[in-house]
Parts: sequence; structure tokens; C-alpha cells
Amino acid sequence: MNEPTPRRPRSAPLPPPAAVGMNIAQADTPALLLDLDAFERNLARLTESLRGTSVRVRPHAKSHKCPEIALRQIARGAVGVCCQKVSEAEALVHGGVSDVLVANEVVGTQKLSRLAELARQARMSVCVDDAGNLADLAQAVRAAGVTLDVLVEVNVGANRCGVEPGEPVLGLAQLIAQSPGLRFAGVHAYHGAAQHLRTPQQRLEAIAQAVSKVRATLQLLESNGLSAEIVTGAGTGTYMLEAASGVYNEIQPGSYVFMDADYGRNLGEDGKPVREFEHSLFILATVMSHTVATRAVVDAGLKAHSVDSGMPLVADVNGAAYTKASDEHGVIELAGPGTLKLGQKVRLVPGHCDPTVNLYDWLVCYRGERVEAIWPVSARGAFY
Amino acid sequence: MNEPTPRRPRSAPLPPPAAVGMNIAQADTPALLLDLDAFERNLARLTESLRGTSVRVRPHAKSHKCPEIALRQIARGAVGVCCQKVSEAEALVHGGVSDVLVANEVVGTQKLSRLAELARQARMSVCVDDAGNLADLAQAVRAAGVTLDVLVEVNVGANRCGVEPGEPVLGLAQLIAQSPGLRFAGVHAYHGAAQHLRTPQQRLEAIAQAVSKVRATLQLLESNGLSAEIVTGAGTGTYMLEAASGVYNEIQPGSYVFMDADYGRNLGEDGKPVREFEHSLFILATVMSHTVATRAVVDAGLKAHSVDSGMPLVADVNGAAYTKASDEHGVIELAGPGTLKLGQKVRLVPGHCDPTVNLYDWLVCYRGERVEAIWPVSARGAFY
Repeated sequence: MNEPTPRRPRSAPLPPPAAVGMNIAQADTPALLLDLDAFERNLARLTESLRGTSVRVRPHAKSHKCPEIALRQIARGAVGVCCQKVSEAEALVHGGVSDVLVANEVVGTQKLSRLAELARQARMSVCVDDAGNLADLAQAVRAAGVTLDVLVEVNVGANRCGVEPGEPVLGLAQLIAQSPGLRFAGVHAYHGAAQHLRTPQQRLEAIAQAVSKVRATLQLLESNGLSAEIVTGAGTGTYMLEAASGVYNEIQPGSYVFMDADYGRNLGEDGKPVREFEHSLFILATVMSHTVATRAVVDAGLKAHSVDSGMPLVADVNGAAYTKASDEHGVIELAGPGTLKLGQKVRLVPGHCDPTVNLYDWLVCYRGERVEAIWPVSARGAFY
Repeated sequence: MNEPTPRRPRSAPLPPPAAVGMNIAQADTPALLLDLDAFERNLARLTESLRGTSVRVRPHAKSHKCPEIALRQIARGAVGVCCQKVSEAEALVHGGVSDVLVANEVVGTQKLSRLAELARQARMSVCVDDAGNLADLAQAVRAAGVTLDVLVEVNVGANRCGVEPGEPVLGLAQLIAQSPGLRFAGVHAYHGAAQHLRTPQQRLEAIAQAVSKVRATLQLLESNGLSAEIVTGAGTGTYMLEAASGVYNEIQPGSYVFMDADYGRNLGEDGKPVREFEHSLFILATVMSHTVATRAVVDAGLKAHSVDSGMPLVADVNGAAYTKASDEHGVIELAGPGTLKLGQKVRLVPGHCDPTVNLYDWLVCYRGERVEAIWPVSARGAFY
């Protein structure tokens, strides 16, 4: 074998690490687990929290990338879902979701024409923050012979995408309203940077500022004869603030279905971590080396969870701390000898749910100790 | 649509973001790019550096997960490759690689029986650091009716897997030698923690200590009638030290084919960053929002590259710094206005190559500006 020859690609995607009916402890590792009881309680709690408000829920599917979850959110009253990428939207629509907001700018003719194509199959909407991009979007929509709802993204403090509040929003809204095939549907005002501010006071202040910017912008639009039917934003960390604002009428929490270690560090009014939603998402890992009494090494490292927001937590093991991740290893420091043994399986709570889910092809859904379903993470790797 | 119904999984994997013959600027984004000229120079430089030594090269395929690359390394004289997981080994063997060391412990009956099965198709070897695991391995090998080379992993300073040098290695080596179907093949002595020590003096000291531990262990083995045919370890940061040690006879560099921003911070004798290998791996990203003159937002965030070792570098754009990553966005601060424009494509050098490659299904290989090949990242997500 001295000269490379053309080879077949991988024969087939990796099979799921478990099968329905199995005890969860039999799953191969690393596996991405979903505790269905906790997941369903999270769905119910969001509904419960919003009872009595008229705000619509459009959960962010970038967190789960899974049509099975999107459909369950919709069954609980969500009006549709958000996502960030056209290819994510394709996977969601293919999976049966009929109303998708790409809560992001879509740039480039390839992506724009795919977005326009999708509008034949589902109710699609998208954000803009640039007049040139808007012109490209209008052209793609004309070429496809479809119509599309368009929201102007407004920067309410995250300093990422979006035009500044006020006149820049009005200018784009007017351009949208003048573009055949496009409908000005409202404003996208997501304050991403506010979601993980640790104290309720910090989050309150950040969202109060966002609300104030949105309110002034809406007044400007109204005074120019433009009505923002949809005012959308909010995440798991702040959604009750937007919901109570009287300004936002749609919210986009995503992580609430799963939670993660980072969201678990947000504090409530009592100074304690907010426990409104439960951890339902875990990595099942195996102790694959344990040569020192107070150190166990598990088979889940940087390729099995994302450490961008810190290390995962070790569930179910008192005093154990996951202290170091390398590509395929995680080092767990133990409170004492005998805490874990070689081959034992442990559940980890990921530091950050969204990029962790994106590493897996399958969600192993369990209830109690029984695997109840295997759901494909259909939009895994869908970043085009 | 009020009740979730069973749905099809994703129809098909995402298609490659480019096609052979295309100009690289036409690729959809984010895309994982391989500059073939730089890649081939990196392959040649490793061969060149080792000329005159008798050390064997067994590159680590955990970095690339790509049989196409493994076969090119073998064509350049590598004796085979390493990997970390059985499912990675399966993808590599399926792709035509005939000699694979799983440079890691394999724990659990499912994985062990798959490893034993693989030994029917290729020359396989594996590491152990536990007597119980060794017994399980022996049983799997007996059940499959195969034979397997086994190395004892020794902790030479990384404090992760592996038994301590000396007697613990001897004990395991003797057990291997007594196990039907298993052959004691040598020691695995990889000092992972030394690879990114920044100064050459630090790396020299760390590897000198490792070498001293290995040497003493080899003497102990010899004096007990056991010969370690293979003494393997080393990574891109230190491989010349192990190669010159007179003790190691096999080395496992992985990142040298790609390089990354983190390896780019290792310093040489002159106090400047080591430039032995070139960056050949890039993320192609598109500016998808640019509402402020000195800030551009690209479509490659936490799901398009791993930030565990820091932010990516912006290639080709003077004074540009990628300062913040969120799930699907990267914020680039610019030296001045007019540096980038909306829709423009930029190349990023990933902070850490291995977990970044694992996010992609395809490597878009280009030469000059032309896409020359699309290689599947066959072991993407292969962490079982």
C-alpha cells in the first residue's frame, strides 16, 4: 500500500449507542442522554410560567437540532421554532416542522436560494441587518416565486449582529415593505449577552435597556405607518422579563429543555442558583482508566462535550469534580478512594448544552432506567 | 400538528460544501479547508527531520480522522497509525489502513469484542493499564479466536492514564505474556502535558524525565526476561526529543499535518514561535453581519471550531482578531474600517485542530485556489 487510491467514504453513520428497551447502563459510551421525565417537566414548566400572558413561544431549535423535540414543543403550544442556519431549517422542515424563523442573517446566494426553496414547504421567516443583503434576499425570493416574512434584527446590547435601534431599523423596515415577495414582519431583538449575567438585578437592568430600545423603535415604526407584528427575542436566562415587558410578543428560549452547568450558575432573588428548569441532558461516560485512588479518567473529553463555558459537572457522585479535558479523556478528581471503579458509568452535565448536542448523532431518551426512544439529532453539523 | 408522530431521521448527511474544480471562494461556509501544498510540505518535513534516525513513525489519526490522510502518511513511510477509539479504528481500517494502534485503554465488553473483531481485518494493537481490563481483553480475544499485540501504558508525567513506571509495568507485562492470544509488544509512554509547554527548555526537561522513567522500566523488564519491542509516544511538540532519546523507537505526532493556533504559540530556541510545520488547516467563514465599521461577524462559532485552546486566528487580514465565539457567530474586531465587507470569505486558523476537525463531515482540499479533492472525515463523531 504505497500509493493512496480513491476510497469509499465511511460505510454508514455510526449506529446509536443504545436500543429501545435496554437498561440505560447498557448503553455504549460516550452517549448523549435525555431524561424524558425531566425534559417533559421542563416543557410543562415553561407553559406554566407563561400562563396568563399572551406571549407566543417559539423555542430555539439550535439547542436541540432535533425535530422530535421541536414537534413536542409545538404540541405544547409553541407557534414554531427558531434556528440559526438554513441547513438547520431544512432538517427541521424535513422532520415535520411547518413554521421556522431563521433568527439570523443569511448571507450568500447559495444559502438564500435554499432558504427561498424552503418557503415552498413551510412558513419561513428570516432576519436582516443590511440593505445589500436584503436586496439579495428579495432577488432569491423572486427567483423562487415565493413570499417570505422578514424581521429587522436590532442590536439591543449584545453587540453582535443587528442594526442600532431607531432610524436604522426604520430604514430597513421601509425597504422590506417596498420589496415584492417580502413582508415586513417585525423586529428581532435578542439580548444574548444578558442570558448568563449571574444576578437577577443584572439581567433585569440589561433587559430593561433592551425593552426601552425596542419600545422607542416600535414607536418610530408606528409613526411611519409600519407595524411590527412580531417582536421577538429572549432566552432561557431572561425570558420572563421579555414576556412581562408588554413589548415583546414572542420569546425564543432554547436551553430550558436541557439546562447545562453554565445556566445552572445563574442566581435567583434568594442568591441561590435558579432551579426553575432541571438538568435533563447528560453525557454517559465510562471510567476507562483508574490507576490512582483519587483520580478516574472517563472516555468523554473535548470531542464528547464542549468546554467553552467550563467543565461538565459529575452527576450522582459526591465530591467528584471533572477537572481536565483532553481530546478523548476527562480527568475526574475524587473525594476519596473507592468512589468510582473501572468500567463504571457516570453521567456528566455538559458545561454548555448547544455545542455539546452538536457533537452527537443520536439522543438516547430514557425514563427511569429504561431506554424509551432514540431520536436523531437531525441537524447535527448543519452549519451551512 | 398537535401530537408528535414518528418521523424519519435526517434524509442524508449534509453534502460537501464544495465540489472538485471549484474556486475555493465558491465553497459554502463554514467549510473545513486543507491547503494541500502546505499539508504535503508538512508530511515531507517530518520525514526530513527524522532522516538518519531509525525511529518509526506512527502518526496519530485522532487529529485527522481521515483515511485519505492516513494512507498518505503511510505512503510517506509511516508504519501505520494510532487512534484513540475502537470506532475510529473501524473507520480507518474500513478506509484501507492495515495497521492501527489504539493508543488508549479500551474498556467494556462491547468495545473489546469490536476491537477483537477488527483484528481479523488488520494488524491491531492496544494499551492496558489495569489487570482486570487485561483479563477482559484476553477473554474477548479468545472469543474471537484472534491474537492481539498489547502495550502497557506508563504514566511519564501527564497524570492521566497509565500505571507508574517500574514494577507496575512489569506486573502487567508479565500478565500479558501469560495470556493466550495476547502478545506483550512494548510500552506506551506518551507525555501529553509536555506538548504545549511553551519553551524548549521546559519541553526538554519534561521529556528527559519521561525518558529516564522509560529507560529504568525497560531495564526492569529486560532483567525479568521481557523485551519491549515497541517503545512509543511523543507528539508534534516534542517528537524530536523522543526520537533522539535512544529509548523510544516509535513516535506518534498527529497535529503536524495541520498545525493550529495553540501549537503556533510554542517557542523555539530563538524565543520565536516554532515554524517547523505550516498551518494547512483552515475554517472558511463568511462575514454575515457587519453593521459597525470595526466589527465583523462571521458564520463560524462554537459549532464550527473548538475554543478549548483559545480563539482562532484570522488569516490573510491584517490586524483582525477573532475575539468572541457564540454558537454560530464569531466576532472579529478589525484594525480599521473597510478591512472586510459583508459576504467576504475569510480563513480562520483553528485554536485546536483535533476537536475542530471532529465537527466536520468533509475536508475541502485545495491547491492554489482550486478545489482538488473532497475527503470524508470518516471517523467524525467516532468516539465509541
